[in-house]
Amino acid sequence: MNYPKSFLDLVECFKRLPGIGGKSAERLAYYVLSMDKEYVQEFAHTLMNFQDNIHYCKKCGHICEGDYCEICQDETRDQSVICVVESPKDVFAMEKVREYHGLYHVLHGTISMIDGTTVDDLNISSLFERLDGVKEVILATNPTREGETTALFLAKLLAKRNIETSRIANGLPIGSNIDYADELTLLKSLEGRKKI
Amino acid sequence: MNYPKSFLDLVECFKRLPGIGGKSAERLAYYVLSMDKEYVQEFAHTLMNFQDNIHYCKKCGHICEGDYCEICQDETRDQSVICVVESPKDVFAMEKVREYHGLYHVLHGTISMIDGTTVDDLNISSLFERLDGVKEVILATNPTREGETTALFLAKLLAKRNIETSRIANGLPIGSNIDYADELTLLKSLEGRKKI
Repeated sequence: MNYPKSFLDLVECFKRLPGIGGKSAERLAYYVLSMDKEYVQEFAHTLMNFQDNIHYCKKCGHICEGDYCEICQDETRDQSVICVVESPKDVFAMEKVREYHGLYHVLHGTISMIDGTTVDDLNISSLFERLDGVKEVILATNPTREGETTALFLAKLLAKRNIETSRIANGLPIGSNIDYADELTLLKSLEGRKKI
Repeated sequence: MNYPKSFLDLVECFKRLPGIGGKSAERLAYYVLSMDKEYVQEFAHTLMNFQDNIHYCKKCGHICEGDYCEICQDETRDQSVICVVESPKDVFAMEKVREYHGLYHVLHGTISMIDGTTVDDLNISSLFERLDGVKEVILATNPTREGETTALFLAKLLAKRNIETSRIANGLPIGSNIDYADELTLLKSLEGRKKI
């Protein structure tokens, strides 16, 4: 005997999400069955309007509900610095530091041979359209192979435009243990040493 | 800066599901943002109609799309045996064995002091309304404290009705190792030994 069709449909929908396999999807569907109807309807409506409500900022590519994001609209922010990140998540992470007051540019990915993502798939061309008056570009892609490749690629292009370009530092994370650090992190940490 | 409201709304909806915390919910919301619009709409619609489409069988309490489930509607099944289980999941598990051809009765829970579930919260009264012509009731609640309590409770009530009542066997699972078995399982396995 099989599950009822509607049940299987919902299981199938849950299975499309990352990190949710067959068993978890079934468990979630059972849970939805037992939830307050009001909550399930709220979930369905939120989901239905989600993609229509969330846009990418026309200037920087960050997520927002209008045409431009909060940060691009904020004139008190330093308009002469742009921090380039891979995804909107990284913007929120940087903002938590409360020390950076410039603008952002979200690439929505990295150059990756494995995933087949090329420069044309990324939000790069619009970066070069907004460089007037910009003094510094901080490349804050992840310290992974793809992130480094993307940062190097951008650094080369930016050098031609005579814009100061910097890369965020690598080294030991605060609270970590030298004993457990991998060789590459330790090497970067040595290379980047500062006088005290 | 905060996430856009629609984004937070969806994160909140995902967080209500079991096993999904704040970080996972954010990750799922980001993923939904990047999904094909068609899939997201399908998800929303499935969710919206889910609880209206899935009913509990009026006879046994199993999930189904009509008034009665496939099993209760199947007249070729042995109408003289009822297997009592905790949840619809257990019916699917039992059906996979392909050896049981009787009917089921789904309790939708167990008697539990901790959760505050009493007899009145379970689908028990309807079991006693369908006992005419029934020769055997198999109590297949889980071998946990709550499952055993519920089975004992039902066994007492069924004894008064002069119906043969049996409890599924406890013992070592096939493919397991005596070395790793807990004492209680091993004890049950000894107690339930059979002549070969």
